[in-house]
Amino acid sequence: MTRTIVESKSKTAIIGFDQPFCVIGERINPTGRKKLAAELEAGDFSTVEKDALAQVAAGATMLDVNAGVVYNSNPNPNETEPPLMVEMIKLVQGLVDVPLCIDSSVPAALEAGLEVCEGRPLLNSVTGEEERLEFILPLVKKYNVPVVAISNDDTGISEDPDVRFAVAKKIVERAADFGIPAHDIVVDPLVMPVGAMGTAGLQVFALVRRLREELGVNTTCGASNISFGLPNRHGINNAFLPMAIGAGMTSAIMNPVALPVTQKAIAEKKAAVEAAGIMLPPEMDDETFVTVFGLGSMQSRPGKEMEAIRAANFLMNNDAHGAEWIRFNKPPAAAGEEGRGRGGRAGGRRRRA
Amino acid sequence: MTRTIVESKSKTAIIGFDQPFCVIGERINPTGRKKLAAELEAGDFSTVEKDALAQVAAGATMLDVNAGVVYNSNPNPNETEPPLMVEMIKLVQGLVDVPLCIDSSVPAALEAGLEVCEGRPLLNSVTGEEERLEFILPLVKKYNVPVVAISNDDTGISEDPDVRFAVAKKIVERAADFGIPAHDIVVDPLVMPVGAMGTAGLQVFALVRRLREELGVNTTCGASNISFGLPNRHGINNAFLPMAIGAGMTSAIMNPVALPVTQKAIAEKKAAVEAAGIMLPPEMDDETFVTVFGLGSMQSRPGKEMEAIRAANFLMNNDAHGAEWIRFNKPPAAAGEEGRGRGGRAGGRRRRA
Repeated sequence: MTRTIVESKSKTAIIGFDQPFCVIGERINPTGRKKLAAELEAGDFSTVEKDALAQVAAGATMLDVNAGVVYNSNPNPNETEPPLMVEMIKLVQGLVDVPLCIDSSVPAALEAGLEVCEGRPLLNSVTGEEERLEFILPLVKKYNVPVVAISNDDTGISEDPDVRFAVAKKIVERAADFGIPAHDIVVDPLVMPVGAMGTAGLQVFALVRRLREELGVNTTCGASNISFGLPNRHGINNAFLPMAIGAGMTSAIMNPVALPVTQKAIAEKKAAVEAAGIMLPPEMDDETFVTVFGLGSMQSRPGKEMEAIRAANFLMNNDAHGAEWIRFNKPPAAAGEEGRGRGGRAGGRRRRA
Repeated sequence: MTRTIVESKSKTAIIGFDQPFCVIGERINPTGRKKLAAELEAGDFSTVEKDALAQVAAGATMLDVNAGVVYNSNPNPNETEPPLMVEMIKLVQGLVDVPLCIDSSVPAALEAGLEVCEGRPLLNSVTGEEERLEFILPLVKKYNVPVVAISNDDTGISEDPDVRFAVAKKIVERAADFGIPAHDIVVDPLVMPVGAMGTAGLQVFALVRRLREELGVNTTCGASNISFGLPNRHGINNAFLPMAIGAGMTSAIMNPVALPVTQKAIAEKKAAVEAAGIMLPPEMDDETFVTVFGLGSMQSRPGKEMEAIRAANFLMNNDAHGAEWIRFNKPPAAAGEEGRGRGGRAGGRRRRA
């Protein structure tokens, strides 16, 4: 039975066929997040802290830490990423106790991260590219860590799943030459957007089965790629994850946190409420408004994908007696009480007036 | 490629490995619905009409029609079910154009249904019980219809999936003796509640693969059984269906319609709204209230399971270019317009006041 052991200083996560699905929180990543990139350049790590706490609260098994930022003051990531990675890892491992995944395309940033990361982090990633194999695999061996292996090579990303399987096989074999066992390799078979390629889902399901049966490796993916460009992306993701889990996928790099309600949505609802002739008490704050009008929540909470994953864990018999499912779905007694309490307070104010 | 052809007078539904999942609407069934049973005894078919229309609107591919009622005036279903089945089938096939599934444990009701049903209905069901095999298979042959084969026999329902597979195999072989091809048999491998049996999901996924690979048959199930007795049953169902589809399941007997908001939920929300000091305009009707406060809808609409199934169809490459997914997820322009229109009317009233 393949088991990939990942550890923080105090906590062990096991990626495995007989384990609950491993959710690797993807949020700590400035790629494509301009605001976060600017904050990091200015030495402001508040968003990193918030993202770390929210993802763990939502149920992330591990956190990915990516320092892929290009500073305005210095456009050379080989110089800026390694020290930023060190700072981010120190911060995150001081804040939460889950294991980390050190994620960079800059080899020096991976090495810098490995030096400061406590426990046994997951390294993200090696590919089938020759230069990358020759640099990363010795690092993996030296630090005795598991590694994500992405199924592309010097020819790029193939649309042919057989080629992607062959790349994964090459990486596993090359790793074996370095004395790295297959159970320390977590293959990402690469998920294409189903909107662009109708066979994208079937490819992943078939690849995951082959990778598991023929190479005996755990698997991961950037789960949300599947729904790229489509309406109602969550609807696609919520079906894709259980299907991938059913096919044997054992982890995903994804956002476990539901998007909080936007200021725009609040403003639109307020306009609709006013137009419907509803009078709000002047003291009503946004949080109460959002709750009463069923807009969701201003607090972070687990995304629907986490519900789908927990249900899939149960259905794969990796949630004994459904204990986690039942705990996850317990009605929030506090929220109910709070609702009544809030009403009570409002009534109190009216009585005093 | 296995294809089960089911037809109404004007419409063909294909159950098959390369087809969108076949949703057999289960609502037209008085079993466990006391109010409906009493209505039917009194000759009132309004609920049947409503259920037929709502299920087709929600996306049902076929409708199951079950007349399993025990009258107060006559406790013998062998006498009461056949004429009721005839009446229900005539009513439903006059109202909607999807193919029907004739569902009864009373053999005479199945035969009566077959006599009046237009097109090529699905017969529900034969089991591995000797008496049932000997009565139903000749009917299937005589009327040249496909049949649901449930994997229990004279010894009952086995908890051992190998035994359930063997029962299915026996039915397929016995049917062959009657000249009934495997593609006209839709096997229900029987879904156990995962809350009672942790392996229930894995059993179904493995059985569906075997039934498909070894017997070449389509499959169906009573999908909601999987979540029996658990909290947040929809959460389990929404993951189970895509996983079953990924394993090769080709149809399910299920409710495609979302539960409408209850009067109790409306009353509770009104109390909370009042307690929060919100003033509603006196002319606000329940439907507007439900919409504005995000309680769901008083109209029937597709359940979340239908979203999961449509996403799974896309991911199985059975929704070319995602056309159905995009259509299903198109923002309801009418609803948006209506929202604004409603606001406009309310404003108008205020201006006139």
